[in-house]
Amino acid sequence: MTTRFDVLGIGNAIMDVLAQVDDDLIVREKLVKGEMRLVDAARSAAIYEAIGPTTLASGGSAGNTIAGIASLGGRAAYIGKVAADPIGAAYGHDMRSVGIHFATGPLENGAPTATSIILITPDGERTMNTHLGACLSLGPDDVEPAVVRAAAITYLEGYLWDPPAAKQAFRAAARIAHEAERKVAITLSDSFCVDRHRGEFLELVRTGTVDIVFANEHELKALYETADLDTAVAALRQDCALAAVTLGAEGSLAVSRGETVHVKAQPVDRVVDLTGAGDLYAAGFLFGLSREMALADCAALGGLAAAEVIGHVGPRPQRHLVDVARDAGYAV
Amino acid sequence: MTTRFDVLGIGNAIMDVLAQVDDDLIVREKLVKGEMRLVDAARSAAIYEAIGPTTLASGGSAGNTIAGIASLGGRAAYIGKVAADPIGAAYGHDMRSVGIHFATGPLENGAPTATSIILITPDGERTMNTHLGACLSLGPDDVEPAVVRAAAITYLEGYLWDPPAAKQAFRAAARIAHEAERKVAITLSDSFCVDRHRGEFLELVRTGTVDIVFANEHELKALYETADLDTAVAALRQDCALAAVTLGAEGSLAVSRGETVHVKAQPVDRVVDLTGAGDLYAAGFLFGLSREMALADCAALGGLAAAEVIGHVGPRPQRHLVDVARDAGYAV
Repeated sequence: MTTRFDVLGIGNAIMDVLAQVDDDLIVREKLVKGEMRLVDAARSAAIYEAIGPTTLASGGSAGNTIAGIASLGGRAAYIGKVAADPIGAAYGHDMRSVGIHFATGPLENGAPTATSIILITPDGERTMNTHLGACLSLGPDDVEPAVVRAAAITYLEGYLWDPPAAKQAFRAAARIAHEAERKVAITLSDSFCVDRHRGEFLELVRTGTVDIVFANEHELKALYETADLDTAVAALRQDCALAAVTLGAEGSLAVSRGETVHVKAQPVDRVVDLTGAGDLYAAGFLFGLSREMALADCAALGGLAAAEVIGHVGPRPQRHLVDVARDAGYAV
Repeated sequence: MTTRFDVLGIGNAIMDVLAQVDDDLIVREKLVKGEMRLVDAARSAAIYEAIGPTTLASGGSAGNTIAGIASLGGRAAYIGKVAADPIGAAYGHDMRSVGIHFATGPLENGAPTATSIILITPDGERTMNTHLGACLSLGPDDVEPAVVRAAAITYLEGYLWDPPAAKQAFRAAARIAHEAERKVAITLSDSFCVDRHRGEFLELVRTGTVDIVFANEHELKALYETADLDTAVAALRQDCALAAVTLGAEGSLAVSRGETVHVKAQPVDRVVDLTGAGDLYAAGFLFGLSREMALADCAALGGLAAAEVIGHVGPRPQRHLVDVARDAGYAV
């Protein structure tokens, strides 16, 4: 059966509130650098008061990935919950205006659209303080079965395990996708997220609820509770058919049953802001898969997309990634 | 009398809505590249529908300049009208969180906070579509006399001539400043703005209502209705005691009664977004004046600040300008 979408993403729809801060602030606010932490409205407001000027940009892990798929010229869809407020309207605009199918009904008369105050330190690392707001209302009823069936790959973020109803949406989507003989992919999202949900994540991988796993080195080590990357990769190879493991400046690994392909990172003049790096890597990799490229090319496309997004502040590409890919010699 | 502030800025308080677009869109929407155009709410909404993803960042010409003064370590104050809405709250946060005195009462139960949809073309040029909203309510009552008297320089944007009541605020502030033996500076803002208000701008300069003029080449030629820069500079020298004329990649001129100093532009790897270039030039120049630097150094500091802001999307510095200035050898 032909597909209408290359990739459907399901995730927490979040407006990023981005600020450049000094390392001192991370310490003073008792934050853990690089972590995504869930915060309530009062804590979110307190952090906002403690920081300097911000810029607002639509984010959310799977949302960023789907925006990347669209930027590469792929056919993309998204499911995520915003509120019926100005921030939610802006989020919807930013998705639909690049051709993404995004039809999830916004939450009326409830919590506001989710925000994440993202603190960018001089090393380019980002520390996230997420107020889930309307995302807590995402549930199985928001999954559009026809859209899942029409997507070659349904891509789900591990962060969906944080809001209680969203994991049911996740499982519903995975079941529909497999019934339609589609693939299901997951990103482990964050090593702290893995710590919170390790048992369920392992179950998803080992039962074949997901076919493709995206993780960075820290998340993978957290999943298998080992300090040794090779051990973790070997375990992952046993547990799932295909995985992509990002290694920061060391590039990435594409791990299938039969082989591990190492691809170097793209050189970057200066890492300005790591926000969205993993998300855009997944975009390039998934786009390559949708075009039936070799795994090395999938990983390289992921690296190209990640390199674009870390060169500027903000979680989504500023250049058309299709141009970035063509400049690198890909016939996309 | 000692001063509490180096520079007070008075201007239209505007949230920038920044989008990267292709040249085709400028033509299709019948816009004039590089212009600031005033639009009503319906036209603003129509342009928003026609463009891709945006980011939101506090802007406004004088607001950007004052943020630059603060970033250089100067003592800064601002007067501008936002609405009592979330966008206005964010604007206030972005000013106050860097130490700027900003106490203008927000507009209650009226128009929303002003926005400007800024279309950035691949050449880095920006075309602005401004919905003035709450800025139309700025008037003489918003001028804080004690703050004007406490500021060494009061800096006013020519754009204030667009909302009818704001020009009265402008004249009131200039009068208070001169009574306190302070200096008054103006930026001509935009060549189309000069076309709209040429007679009054010339009167401001020739009557000494303003002491210092900031203009780019196009604005200055528009003011004196000549195609020849030298002619315009000669006329300006007759009309006012001090002026700074920016020439884009050719650098800038500091023009006083006795001399014209030409300072080269700072080299820039890639012009990403010209939004804020003139505003940050003014910040560097005014900061230099406040520190009694030589005119060549004032112009050079302006060039450094402008170079920082055009290297990334958004109208305000992402690096601390005090660090930029120190890296360039200035003891600030």
